[in-house]
Amino acid sequence: MLLNEYRQEMLPAVEDELKAIVQLANGEGLGDLHHMLRYHLGWEGEGAGQKARGKRIRPLLVLLSAAASGEDWKTALPAAAAVELLHNFSLVHDDIQDNSKLRRGRTTLWAKWGVAQAINAGDSMFALAHMALERLEASTTPQVYVQAARLLPRTSLELTQGQYLDLAYEDASDLALESYWPMVQGKTAVLLSTCVQLGALTNGSEGKNLEAYIRFGEKIGLAFQVHDDLLGIWGESKKTGKSASSDLLSEKKSLPVLYVLNQAGQFAKLWKSGTANVDQLEKLAQLLESEGGKAYAEEMAEKLTSEALEALEDAEPSPSAGTALKELALELVQRSN
Amino acid sequence: MLLNEYRQEMLPAVEDELKAIVQLANGEGLGDLHHMLRYHLGWEGEGAGQKARGKRIRPLLVLLSAAASGEDWKTALPAAAAVELLHNFSLVHDDIQDNSKLRRGRTTLWAKWGVAQAINAGDSMFALAHMALERLEASTTPQVYVQAARLLPRTSLELTQGQYLDLAYEDASDLALESYWPMVQGKTAVLLSTCVQLGALTNGSEGKNLEAYIRFGEKIGLAFQVHDDLLGIWGESKKTGKSASSDLLSEKKSLPVLYVLNQAGQFAKLWKSGTANVDQLEKLAQLLESEGGKAYAEEMAEKLTSEALEALEDAEPSPSAGTALKELALELVQRSN
Repeated sequence: MLLNEYRQEMLPAVEDELKAIVQLANGEGLGDLHHMLRYHLGWEGEGAGQKARGKRIRPLLVLLSAAASGEDWKTALPAAAAVELLHNFSLVHDDIQDNSKLRRGRTTLWAKWGVAQAINAGDSMFALAHMALERLEASTTPQVYVQAARLLPRTSLELTQGQYLDLAYEDASDLALESYWPMVQGKTAVLLSTCVQLGALTNGSEGKNLEAYIRFGEKIGLAFQVHDDLLGIWGESKKTGKSASSDLLSEKKSLPVLYVLNQAGQFAKLWKSGTANVDQLEKLAQLLESEGGKAYAEEMAEKLTSEALEALEDAEPSPSAGTALKELALELVQRSN
Repeated sequence: MLLNEYRQEMLPAVEDELKAIVQLANGEGLGDLHHMLRYHLGWEGEGAGQKARGKRIRPLLVLLSAAASGEDWKTALPAAAAVELLHNFSLVHDDIQDNSKLRRGRTTLWAKWGVAQAINAGDSMFALAHMALERLEASTTPQVYVQAARLLPRTSLELTQGQYLDLAYEDASDLALESYWPMVQGKTAVLLSTCVQLGALTNGSEGKNLEAYIRFGEKIGLAFQVHDDLLGIWGESKKTGKSASSDLLSEKKSLPVLYVLNQAGQFAKLWKSGTANVDQLEKLAQLLESEGGKAYAEEMAEKLTSEALEALEDAEPSPSAGTALKELALELVQRSN
């Protein structure tokens, strides 16, 4: 089966599972809070629809990893919903922290309903993510539920730590190139690795195979973030749904930027002068490229991707789901949005 | 044993357990985030010390409820730490949402480190609360851990929903008096009830006794919040560590306010005219009293307290811890800060 066939089968089931869990947040007087969650998840309000829902990459990773043992991936649906909710919790809070008014081409929660209630909406999704796991007890075994219940809070903590570093780095000067990795490890790689791990756990993977799955998730997560850094500077804003070069404006220490800052050339001079404003974004992007930042990041993304694919082979997935996982991994590091 | 003797034994153990869990959030490059948590919990920074730590009411409720079965309360320490972390997660986010610059007489996290990183600090404590429970597997049984792991996310969701309603009510006019209860149920009562439930679960309480403990927690939680409403208007700011009458200024729909708004008298007229400013806070407080809002809230607090104490008797706690629980309950609704 090809990735797209899996996607067509899996994604509607993910939406159903997500909706059932989000419904738990509804109740008397809570209609507006529930609507905020449904708006953010792309089901309601202006601009609702497929594009607004995002790509649901994380649930797909869970379900394909579950399918890769040859078992029924439906048993892993609660875990798939849990990771998507955790991811969206972090997006809602990130948008507040980064002052981002647009997400997937739509007004963000805080821009629409204010910071205070957007914090609450994020917190609700955080709680719902953990509640979702409970349904694993019925779909798999109590043991799998316990393993998942142990894993998700750790993942949440690392996610928050990654976001902390990302923000802290904005104000930091003279960061070593290596500082990049713990930040993106928390911000992106841990959650992708948790996706793969949850899927593999659900269907009884253990030992060396499970370790290989975890490594696959981590490596592909790192590659994904490096590619995201490239898109954040050189991506087309029409496709990404974000403002062009917004990562340069907000002084994010992305991999191309960190690499070139450590070269101490023209880019570093202009960046550190503090005079880089909207008019100079194009110049900054050009310097980033000519001083090797773009090429370095592309090279790293490629290296991490091949490490990920090696790990995937070591995990010995079933041929069909394994091929789809490989396809998804390549899609993640070649996408244009 | 008297409440104060229990407190002297239990609270140092709670601090040790909390510190061990908060240490999990530390790591390379994460020292400042860790410091934010330690500052908020009253261990570090300006004004650190007993007053800054708060009263640790929730861990005490857990441990006394655990002791009430005659077993060793130390087994419940992970649960005690979990509820205190969950409580403090909600305080950190509430302070942002309510724009509060002071908490327990000290600068709040967002006022000191900015909204973005305060959101992260709150999120970290949210994750740590769930991580704390894992330690129950070693101190009690895997079954108790699973019950606790199911309970905490639900409690978190209800907490968030209560906070959502609290904020939503600020902008709402013509709220019925009954709207008050679902809001404080989520905002306060659910967590206190979870404390008692976790403590009772840890030591094997079940059936009617467990139900009575849960009822005790809920009722004392509601009484606690009504008393808090009274303090928020008539408490001495020096003792509460908050600005005087801050609840009137922020247009909180506290029980006295909701009661008197539904009387549609002088208070309601002034309140709804939208002209009530800082200079008129005293007048508003006087009208609240003369139109019966204070007396009504006091009566409700008393009624709920006796219902709580009845439930506590039904739970059949061991004499010593039972008496201490009763003492704590009374303290909660008679405190001046």
